[in-house]
Amino acid sequence: NAMFNPTDHPHRRYDPLGGDWVLVSPHRAKRPWQGQQEAPDRAPRPAHDPGCYLCAGNVRVNGERNPDYQGTYVFANDFAALMPDTPDAPPGADPLFQSMSARGTSRVICFSPDHAKSLPQLPLPALRGVVDTWCEQAAELGASYRWVQVFENKGAAMGCSNPHPHGQVWATSFLPDLPAREDRLQRAYHAEHGRPLLLDVAEREAGARERVVVETAHWLAVVPYWAAWPFETLLLPRFPVQRLEDLNDEQRTDLALALKRLTTRYDNLFQTSFPYSMGWHGAPYGEGDNTQAWQLHAHFHPPLLRSASVRKFMVGFEMLAEAQRDLTPEQAAAMLRAVSDEVHYLDAAD
Amino acid sequence: NAMFNPTDHPHRRYDPLGGDWVLVSPHRAKRPWQGQQEAPDRAPRPAHDPGCYLCAGNVRVNGERNPDYQGTYVFANDFAALMPDTPDAPPGADPLFQSMSARGTSRVICFSPDHAKSLPQLPLPALRGVVDTWCEQAAELGASYRWVQVFENKGAAMGCSNPHPHGQVWATSFLPDLPAREDRLQRAYHAEHGRPLLLDVAEREAGARERVVVETAHWLAVVPYWAAWPFETLLLPRFPVQRLEDLNDEQRTDLALALKRLTTRYDNLFQTSFPYSMGWHGAPYGEGDNTQAWQLHAHFHPPLLRSASVRKFMVGFEMLAEAQRDLTPEQAAAMLRAVSDEVHYLDAAD
Ligand SMILES: O=P(O)(O)O[C@H]1O[C@H](CO)[C@@H](O)[C@H](O)[C@H]1O
Ligand SMILES: O=P(O)(O)O[C@H]1O[C@H](CO)[C@@H](O)[C@H](O)[C@H]1O
Repeated sequence: NAMFNPTDHPHRRYDPLGGDWVLVSPHRAKRPWQGQQEAPDRAPRPAHDPGCYLCAGNVRVNGERNPDYQGTYVFANDFAALMPDTPDAPPGADPLFQSMSARGTSRVICFSPDHAKSLPQLPLPALRGVVDTWCEQAAELGASYRWVQVFENKGAAMGCSNPHPHGQVWATSFLPDLPAREDRLQRAYHAEHGRPLLLDVAEREAGARERVVVETAHWLAVVPYWAAWPFETLLLPRFPVQRLEDLNDEQRTDLALALKRLTTRYDNLFQTSFPYSMGWHGAPYGEGDNTQAWQLHAHFHPPLLRSASVRKFMVGFEMLAEAQRDLTPEQAAAMLRAVSDEVHYLDAAD
Repeated sequence: NAMFNPTDHPHRRYDPLGGDWVLVSPHRAKRPWQGQQEAPDRAPRPAHDPGCYLCAGNVRVNGERNPDYQGTYVFANDFAALMPDTPDAPPGADPLFQSMSARGTSRVICFSPDHAKSLPQLPLPALRGVVDTWCEQAAELGASYRWVQVFENKGAAMGCSNPHPHGQVWATSFLPDLPAREDRLQRAYHAEHGRPLLLDVAEREAGARERVVVETAHWLAVVPYWAAWPFETLLLPRFPVQRLEDLNDEQRTDLALALKRLTTRYDNLFQTSFPYSMGWHGAPYGEGDNTQAWQLHAHFHPPLLRSASVRKFMVGFEMLAEAQRDLTPEQAAAMLRAVSDEVHYLDAAD
């Protein structure tokens, strides 16, 4: 009888942070692809686009004019999914038709006035400015809301409707589904082991090395053992910390470096402005001080699978049964490690 | 103070079948869209394409020749995500790095030899043939596997790599995540109320009518109260039944009719071959006879939001926090009811 081998044999892996399994089918990467092609994002852009509603000095849809900002610039989303003053919904009696009122706010965060420079192309001090803005937003909105979701949708393939480098922050009066699951699982792990789950993960990954993509003094980016997206990464602090605003000066500067290296590797992998959705999860707000089970972390979910134009589709089996991936997390990490984390392909001498 | 109004105010709704919430932001549908455009699928296709690996008589990648099939045609996927003979994985000791071996099989189901005709364009007897093939596959694979996932990915936007009308069936030695949640929640509801959850849902929806999209003698298609995708539907039997293969002759013929009406409405909504992932959930196999909590049902997850070329992206907030929708399920159901369920737009006289 053949021995089980995770680089040949289909298997499932368990995500102890989210509570889901993923089906790993390593031999499937060989199938030919005749489906949809993405448009690679390689066109050069001007530093200022007069038609862009995020560039400094331009007028937005609602008639407001952006200031001549230098670093980051934050404003309330003109088409917010959440509003601060929603009235309470009456309680429903039927267990099959339950709803609740939702309060919140949503803001846009321009990373830089430069229309052409995504995160890996920003100089380190500008990246540090982005980190500081994330921390400020978390602290400010955490004072009024239960959850603060800082995120970035990058690239047309990820529903981003404007290439100007920007992210968003949505704050909600409730703890959304996915952080609620992470909350439950981190608390259970902490109750059993007396340590934050993700601090143990970071320690073991730093030792094993096979899934490490970027390592700095204080941060570690890994393709998690249970990654669902082909080149998904988890950006982990190597020290206990619960929220963005708790990071000190040195940890923030080092985070800017880790972000630059990780996003440079991403862009270099397929020589394209690598699309993804990324976002931060930290301890929820307003439920007393008992958050020591929590560890701050960022998820990066990039859709590309084989090249700048062939993505993974999470459809069919994935939508109806369980996430599925076509190469192992260890293979993905090795591919990311094989490209430079210092020189961006657009800056490489030919 | 204003009164809460679900067509104006952001709110969350709970999915009692899947256990997740969805954020409903009804006012957000008005925002302008400058992002990715999908290519509408409106090009006429020949009834036989010599380059198609699913058409009758053609040769596939692995050198096999398809028979001259007349109705449906089922064959083993040439690039299967699952294999029947995977060896067992050794148990892992670390709770942070858990895996298990996965056994299974995956097959392709051609719906018709006609390369040009998707489900709504097939005559009723051919649709009945598709239903029978689904039932046969479920019965056959359910004899060896714990879970049988029958599904269809339709359209390039849903990762379908060949426009020839076809679906798939993947069978697994384990109960995947999403049906495992439905299993748990249906059992809990049955234990408390003594009736299958989805039979109660069907009854209440048939009475309320505001989310009904298609109604036949034995079947009901609704935009569920907790729909995440803009035009998501749930296709429900109006009688107790646990698995596809338990449907009798009359229920199968009536299901063909319900499928024809539902997919006709879908195509007519934006005058395009409407993309979606759909699939069947029935009682899992091989755990004794205690499945009376289960009710067979199909989920349809279509990505389009405003037109044939503008889709909903489940990214950013949705990937990191919670699903979010931009119109109410009641509005979506009304839009689907407003188009014909009898005459397909391609057959309409000008
Ligand atoms: O099997 P196919 O049609 O080649 O592939 C499609 O369906 C599969 C099952 O849902 C997915 O895993 C793939 O991402 C998708 O592209
Ligand atoms: O807010 P945007 O950038 O217009 O929209 C994008 O991000 C949102 C938050 O993740 C999503 O709900 C939208 O589907 C997506 O297109």
